[in-house]
Formats: sequence, C-alpha cells, structure tokens
Amino acid sequence: MPQLIIKGMEHEEIKKISKPLVDELHRIIGCPRDYFTIEAVNSIFIMDGEQQSINPLVQVNWFDRGQQVQDQVAAALYRHITGVGYGQVETFFVALHESSYYENEKHY
Amino acid sequence: MPQLIIKGMEHEEIKKISKPLVDELHRIIGCPRDYFTIEAVNSIFIMDGEQQSINPLVQVNWFDRGQQVQDQVAAALYRHITGVGYGQVETFFVALHESSYYENEKHY
Amino acid sequence: MPQLIIKGMEHEEIKKISKPLVDELHRIIGCPRDYFTIEAVNSIFIMDGEQQSINPLVQVNWFDRGQQVQDQVAAALYRHITGVGYGQVETFFVALHESSYYENEKHY
Repeated sequence: MPQLIIKGMEHEEIKKISKPLVDELHRIIGCPRDYFTIEAVNSIFIMDGEQQSINPLVQVNWFDRGQQVQDQVAAALYRHITGVGYGQVETFFVALHESSYYENEKHY
Repeated sequence: MPQLIIKGMEHEEIKKISKPLVDELHRIIGCPRDYFTIEAVNSIFIMDGEQQSINPLVQVNWFDRGQQVQDQVAAALYRHITGVGYGQVETFFVALHESSYYENEKHY
Repeated sequence: MPQLIIKGMEHEEIKKISKPLVDELHRIIGCPRDYFTIEAVNSIFIMDGEQQSINPLVQVNWFDRGQQVQDQVAAALYRHITGVGYGQVETFFVALHESSYYENEKHY
C-alpha cells in the first residue's frame, strides 16, 4: 500500500512513469517507496458492441490521508500520465481501514 | 462512471448486450451514455484444485443513487445477462464519493 | 461470496491450496462451501521501469463478520499461502452491504 491499479494505459507507458511517479508520491505521502505497488490490469473495455480503448483510469487503494494529500496525489498522477501523451485521466481513491488490512497474520 | 466490471461472461456475450444495456441504464440513471464503461475482466476462477467457470458477476462502481434506482439497475443487468442465456447473475454496487473521484486534477 | 481475489500467486499454487483453504474458511465463517469464489487475477506489477513480482496479495469481498472472524480468516490465508512456499502475505477485507448485493433481481 498504497496500491495504484491502472487501466487503459500501455505497459510501456506505465514503465516510463513508474520511477518518477513513485519518487513524487513517496514525497507527498511520506511512506517508504517499497510500500507502493503499481498494477497494470489486463482487462478489455467494450462499448456498443465493440472493444474500445478508454482514457487512463487509476484506482488508488490506501489508508486515507485527508483531502489535501489526496488532491496532491491525484495531481501528480494527472501530470505524469498526461506527460507521456494521454489527454485525460480519471483517478479515484478507495479508503481501506487499518483494522481490515493484514501484514501476514496481524492487522495494522 | 458508472463502471460496470464483469466477470464470468464471454466477451462476445458482453458485446451483444452492451448497447441495449447502456441504453437502458442511461434512461434509469439519467447520466450521459459516454459516462459508462463496461470492463470484461480476464481473470480465472479456481475451486477444489481446478479451474472453474462462474456465473456472471457484476461489480458496479458509481455514485450512490439510492435503493430504488439501484434496484432498477440490478434488474436491468439481470434481464440483459439472462437474456443471452446465463441462468443466474450476481450484482453488487460499490459507492464511490465525489470528493474522492477526480476528472484530471479536480474532484467532483 | 465471500470472494477471494488473489494477486501475485501462481495458478498452480492457488489450485493446491484451494480445497483445504475453502474447507477451513467454511468452518470459520459458517457459510456453504459453494458460496466461495477464488479469483486468480492476471494483471502485472511494475516498479522502477520493470515488471516485478509481488508477494501474494489477497482481497476478500464479503459481508462483515466482525474482527474476530476476520482475524481467523486472515490467519488461515496466511497459513495456507506460506505453506506452499511464499514468505509473506498481505490480506485486506472489503465489506459489502446486504442492501447492495443482488442474487439475480433481489438484494440480500
């Protein structure tokens, strides 16, 4: 955690942004770099009978850090993803809870 | 948004229902057609040591519209999915929050 | 439901644990065996410009059964997954709500 779950983006483009993005999120959030995971989801999208491409869509699973930090994380994602050529980005945050998140047998 | 995330259904069957389903959900929910995404997830399911097939399972990520609209969306999904031959459908809704959902740098 | 969504684990290893794991969870949770689904997600993980492997990560979607049952489920997942050779496991629980979970047209 935080888990960045990315849809609608080429793997190669995710690779390009992965280091500078995590460097920046590490500074914004203040948690160790190796807490982050970036997941590239292999699903397909369908509209009106056809496979379609979508704009990058990012789900962030994390412990809530408040609106201000969240705004900064969304802005960083927007900047890095549009920086490799995408025109639009949607990002949403899902707050997980310490009592429901386990490292091995112990929750946080 | 709304995001329809579908597991346990063939891509071709999803393509068949995609247009009439979104037409109907657009009427029920009252948001533009191009807000919808339909995602076909490529994961596999496993039970008792073997890969298994599952009944269609739909996760809907959206801003909560109340129980009545939600009931209508679930009924529409049920009708369209059983209409192409599946016997049973499970649908669940995950409410996202405007303050946590960003279009580019701005949340709703 | 409960839905076990597993990332970072080989399909063959998931198959090995699938029967004894569900046997044990069935006893802990007290719901029928065939309510469980185990999903093996096919996404890839990326860090610092490279594809990486991650430690097994399990998301459990369920109706909340309280902290004590949840602790036992996490412990069972930890035991079965480390039992086939993985060194570390992260497990998190997402509580779904009866009024938002539909079997066909009817919610729970």
